Amino acid sequence: MSSYLGKNLHISIFGQSHAPAIGVTMDGLPPGERVDLEALEAFLQRRAPGRDLTATTRKEGDNPQILCGLLDGVTCGAPLTAVIANTNTRSQDYAQLRDVPRPGHADYTASLRYGGFQDVRGGGHFSGRLTAPLCIAGGICLQILERRGIQIAAHIRSIFTTEDRPFHPMGEDADTLRRLKETPFPVLDSAKGEEMRLRILEAKNLQDSVGGVVECIVMHPPAGVGDPMFGGMEGRLACALFGIPAVKGVEFGAGFGAARLWGSQNNDPYTMEHGTVTLKSNHAGGILGGITNGMPLIFRAAFKPTPSIGLEQDSVSLSRRTAEKLTVHGRHDPCIVPRAVPVVEAAAAVVLLDAILDCGM
Amino acid sequence: MSSYLGKNLHISIFGQSHAPAIGVTMDGLPPGERVDLEALEAFLQRRAPGRDLTATTRKEGDNPQILCGLLDGVTCGAPLTAVIANTNTRSQDYAQLRDVPRPGHADYTASLRYGGFQDVRGGGHFSGRLTAPLCIAGGICLQILERRGIQIAAHIRSIFTTEDRPFHPMGEDADTLRRLKETPFPVLDSAKGEEMRLRILEAKNLQDSVGGVVECIVMHPPAGVGDPMFGGMEGRLACALFGIPAVKGVEFGAGFGAARLWGSQNNDPYTMEHGTVTLKSNHAGGILGGITNGMPLIFRAAFKPTPSIGLEQDSVSLSRRTAEKLTVHGRHDPCIVPRAVPVVEAAAAVVLLDAILDCGM
Amino acid sequence: MSSYLGKNLHISIFGQSHAPAIGVTMDGLPPGERVDLEALEAFLQRRAPGRDLTATTRKEGDNPQILCGLLDGVTCGAPLTAVIANTNTRSQDYAQLRDVPRPGHADYTASLRYGGFQDVRGGGHFSGRLTAPLCIAGGICLQILERRGIQIAAHIRSIFTTEDRPFHPMGEDADTLRRLKETPFPVLDSAKGEEMRLRILEAKNLQDSVGGVVECIVMHPPAGVGDPMFGGMEGRLACALFGIPAVKGVEFGAGFGAARLWGSQNNDPYTMEHGTVTLKSNHAGGILGGITNGMPLIFRAAFKPTPSIGLEQDSVSLSRRTAEKLTVHGRHDPCIVPRAVPVVEAAAAVVLLDAILDCGM
Amino acid sequence: MSSYLGKNLHISIFGQSHAPAIGVTMDGLPPGERVDLEALEAFLQRRAPGRDLTATTRKEGDNPQILCGLLDGVTCGAPLTAVIANTNTRSQDYAQLRDVPRPGHADYTASLRYGGFQDVRGGGHFSGRLTAPLCIAGGICLQILERRGIQIAAHIRSIFTTEDRPFHPMGEDADTLRRLKETPFPVLDSAKGEEMRLRILEAKNLQDSVGGVVECIVMHPPAGVGDPMFGGMEGRLACALFGIPAVKGVEFGAGFGAARLWGSQNNDPYTMEHGTVTLKSNHAGGILGGITNGMPLIFRAAFKPTPSIGLEQDSVSLSRRTAEKLTVHGRHDPCIVPRAVPVVEAAAAVVLLDAILDCGM
Repeated sequence: MSSYLGKNLHISIFGQSHAPAIGVTMDGLPPGERVDLEALEAFLQRRAPGRDLTATTRKEGDNPQILCGLLDGVTCGAPLTAVIANTNTRSQDYAQLRDVPRPGHADYTASLRYGGFQDVRGGGHFSGRLTAPLCIAGGICLQILERRGIQIAAHIRSIFTTEDRPFHPMGEDADTLRRLKETPFPVLDSAKGEEMRLRILEAKNLQDSVGGVVECIVMHPPAGVGDPMFGGMEGRLACALFGIPAVKGVEFGAGFGAARLWGSQNNDPYTMEHGTVTLKSNHAGGILGGITNGMPLIFRAAFKPTPSIGLEQDSVSLSRRTAEKLTVHGRHDPCIVPRAVPVVEAAAAVVLLDAILDCGM
Repeated sequence: MSSYLGKNLHISIFGQSHAPAIGVTMDGLPPGERVDLEALEAFLQRRAPGRDLTATTRKEGDNPQILCGLLDGVTCGAPLTAVIANTNTRSQDYAQLRDVPRPGHADYTASLRYGGFQDVRGGGHFSGRLTAPLCIAGGICLQILERRGIQIAAHIRSIFTTEDRPFHPMGEDADTLRRLKETPFPVLDSAKGEEMRLRILEAKNLQDSVGGVVECIVMHPPAGVGDPMFGGMEGRLACALFGIPAVKGVEFGAGFGAARLWGSQNNDPYTMEHGTVTLKSNHAGGILGGITNGMPLIFRAAFKPTPSIGLEQDSVSLSRRTAEKLTVHGRHDPCIVPRAVPVVEAAAAVVLLDAILDCGM
Repeated sequence: MSSYLGKNLHISIFGQSHAPAIGVTMDGLPPGERVDLEALEAFLQRRAPGRDLTATTRKEGDNPQILCGLLDGVTCGAPLTAVIANTNTRSQDYAQLRDVPRPGHADYTASLRYGGFQDVRGGGHFSGRLTAPLCIAGGICLQILERRGIQIAAHIRSIFTTEDRPFHPMGEDADTLRRLKETPFPVLDSAKGEEMRLRILEAKNLQDSVGGVVECIVMHPPAGVGDPMFGGMEGRLACALFGIPAVKGVEFGAGFGAARLWGSQNNDPYTMEHGTVTLKSNHAGGILGGITNGMPLIFRAAFKPTPSIGLEQDSVSLSRRTAEKLTVHGRHDPCIVPRAVPVVEAAAAVVLLDAILDCGM
Repeated sequence: MSSYLGKNLHISIFGQSHAPAIGVTMDGLPPGERVDLEALEAFLQRRAPGRDLTATTRKEGDNPQILCGLLDGVTCGAPLTAVIANTNTRSQDYAQLRDVPRPGHADYTASLRYGGFQDVRGGGHFSGRLTAPLCIAGGICLQILERRGIQIAAHIRSIFTTEDRPFHPMGEDADTLRRLKETPFPVLDSAKGEEMRLRILEAKNLQDSVGGVVECIVMHPPAGVGDPMFGGMEGRLACALFGIPAVKGVEFGAGFGAARLWGSQNNDPYTMEHGTVTLKSNHAGGILGGITNGMPLIFRAAFKPTPSIGLEQDSVSLSRRTAEKLTVHGRHDPCIVPRAVPVVEAAAAVVLLDAILDCGM
């Protein structure tokens, strides 16, 4: 378990920020599924930088090239591999990076893990850029899930201390979710969104950064999907979400808030609606015993502030064993959260489709 | 991926609450490690019910029997299997349980997943009782890790709205951690502990329940352990923690709080101490890029309130397709959190030892 | 990958020959399947020693105890664990075994792998006795497959240089297969069987041993099961078969013989029978591109002669670093092949059911 | 498990014969290993067509492009992905292929497995061309193993009924193995090689094909590598070898021949040489109990004759449900065995390196 994930749908992500390319292989996609490349590129575009004033202006060539897995645009049962060429890289000088690790980044831990041989240019394999192939995988899964009537959408739940209204636990209508996907700064409450944007611009001006929380909803998930224990939907989704750089917390339904409720409040009572079992509330976020109960899946991922900041920071020289001052240059997002929104949707889509296939659905 | 976990150390958990036995198989334990059965039983005892006024008085026969994997008390390279017989079960009448699912439990979702064939007696495979075999596995791993100088301890971080003081991010001394393991109600601030106990007794009197948060610390973890992306320590630990029934949120280091910090606050600066790289703070909870940085691992798991409450609740009859009132009888903890403390330690130990073995350490 | 196997049906085998017990956990069995314990014990009985003059008279208590996974005798979706207690063990003195490895056994390699901590008593985890839990798993799978119209049977294809007639590539009738299962010495040509038995008795008298080949057939397998490359049915079956001690070769259909055919002979032509695609011959053993084609699956596993022989052999003392003479005492089969017949069936059943579940069938 | 393999070294193969590209991702390569691209291309060249009169003249552009995983030519811990563009494809008309399956190919079974959506052009994902990425993976592993003193080489053991002399069970000298790698038709006995070539040319003239056996040797493998049961070296190697198209049998050491030996002949006695444990013979092919014993690993893989032959064959129309005559056109090897020699070496290298990493070596 490292840069691959999944059982019946197995994805394997590769690439470094400044290597010739990054990409993903998906082994186990159901055959006969059309991949709409235009829609896929539109989905990837949501993750691209430069869409909003708050983001870095580095242009990434996020045009995926499908190397295999399709026949006449339709999945053929063979593994699907897509790559994105890394064209807009600047890696003249990384000798210093290799020696003086950036606080909050993987520079130091990668050095320990790989004996100093790691690729530090642009963060290497640990770069946020590696979420692009995850979005390719997720974008394809989203198309397949949509054909099965399942919608996945996410919004910026908070930036710093400013909070958007939460998703309604019982679900959101399709229009609301569609609107979220059409904007570079997806929030439910646009006034709060403006406040968030100001906060991000403030961080930018301070050469600092801020974090936030992304909330995701899966509407109309099939009921009865998932496994007990380590195969539960929470654990599977968490494993994928923590695979996104900067995620430091994951919660489902009422999440940490559930720990402050009475059982009589938190339990979701059952009722019968038109002969169908349904639940009167959704503190569980749609998952009980690791298995979906048919209610919307709702979960949140906390993103730490981007570690790349322009302010001078304390570090060390690994070779000279001395304390050093470090100032990180380059183009960095003062807040990664807006661009992380489709990445969270992608992670959810990959996990959900895999779990659905596990059930032979 | 279901009731098994791990790569180089592979654990497989089995059993239902009212089946003849529950247990665990561990495949990949390093050979030559002595298993101190007395210490293991003492560890399991910490999870046992009836140790504190706040817990159920059901007696569980948590005496593990080692079926294989040891030779003269020492691991021999073969899989180690341990079982616990289920002796104190009362399952005369489960016809109703099968038909009228308990809110907040897996009854309904298991019914969907397994086509109505699931074992509902005492929660079946979804029972909190299945954390006992996880504790066997974890207890054995803890002994091995301790020999390598690694300590793992947890405390009750909160019950309902009452909060214990957090672990110090830079670590706690050995005495403090030892004391936590010697008490049935492990908190750092005993006054807060008393408040928590009162709250739990209140819930008990109300025939209701409360949840809480468990915080865990790993002192002196080896640096450089873990993998990028889906093999990161956060994802691996989360997958194990969400395998514990009732966990609905997991966070590392500053966690969700990191989303409310500036980057300049959250980044942990490096410094040199006696020629050794160290960090001046620990918002990362000891993990960067999925890999340990040598600082204490700190994480929290949120437990929802026990779904089994004595109050009448709304449910449905799955056979008659009608709304029903349900009152759950039986012996239930009004709060599972105190007993969950060693379970969280166990999950951490299993994951950490597996990751260490991955690195060939 | 070690003592566990499978993707959607995951089995994990544990135990040592002289540990308190051996057993198996099956995670992923389809729910709602009745397990006929009497039929299972009858199947295990086929593997038991002492059924034929040619076998050891050691009595094994092969009565499996199902610890969990069933509810009222029917699979309930939870992992099924079954154990067999080791009652008839004699392991007073194994100090010498640990020091002077038996030629042809795993004594020496286990010592290297496990740093001298391995359990050598009766072969430990490497004992042929560990095929009993594989037979429990396989026996349960066979019952499930039979309900789906799939029969699996095997026979002794050869002992030493004496050969039974091969299975007809186009299949055998149900009566023939049933008869094979009713005899302790399953052959198609009883005259050849007598010759084989004489050869085994000769080996016994010489305090030597002989090997042989087991041939297995799967009648009416579903077509379209399996995956390309490393997920092909050949590779999966081989992985399970080489998990049986003493297997040193595996071949499918014409197997090694196919290497001596012209392509025009070996290719199996298609034809249409009553509107159904069928094949005119079956050199492929029912597998093309790793995927079943609907023809009978036919394969063979070569068993080396039992390494435990009474004759004096050359060995070494690992502690003294000297050459030693070794005479192995104890109760040993002069030929393991007859008892291996149901084990091969069991391995086939486990792999086939897993592959069928992979396909969502 | 499908087009991926391995535990600590995880390889994932992708591509179809006529897709834009084929390739492989290797996740888990030890960091700090230089990849000699020239040597890698030379290794791939051994698999390329057109090197010998007996092979097809189709030119394949087997120049691998490394997309990631290297930094300055050295492994950096990140997954390594290499691709080969498919340039020389002719796939104008595959409508007929899709309807009328070629005997001996995966056309029909893929159609069943993938619901008719499979890519049949040039065999799609089932093409022998997919052994090129396996050779990339294996070629890189071979370089790493060589640095650790391990040599792997293979030869054509037989073509049709003509047999080369076998590898000496106790090993071959380095010169002999080197010479095998320098010739497009690797045999130990050149007279036998000439006979084989005549046989292949005869098959070519007849528009027919022949098969054969490849034998592989691993010199100086580390002792103590591998796991019991399903993690044994035989099962792991077999799983990789059966992943090579056309392999229908695999055997280790004396293999099927061991079934015709007495135990006293087949057991390899131990002796002490200069204070080192060694074995006097090597019927076990270097593996006991699934674990290497330090002797040369020796195994053979049987290849069926190439199913693509020019002779008219019987097939069916899947759409019209009628019998059809089929004549396969195109450029095909009358015998795939010579080109399979490096593929077998590659499979062995990938498996062995993975197993070595499992042991933390």
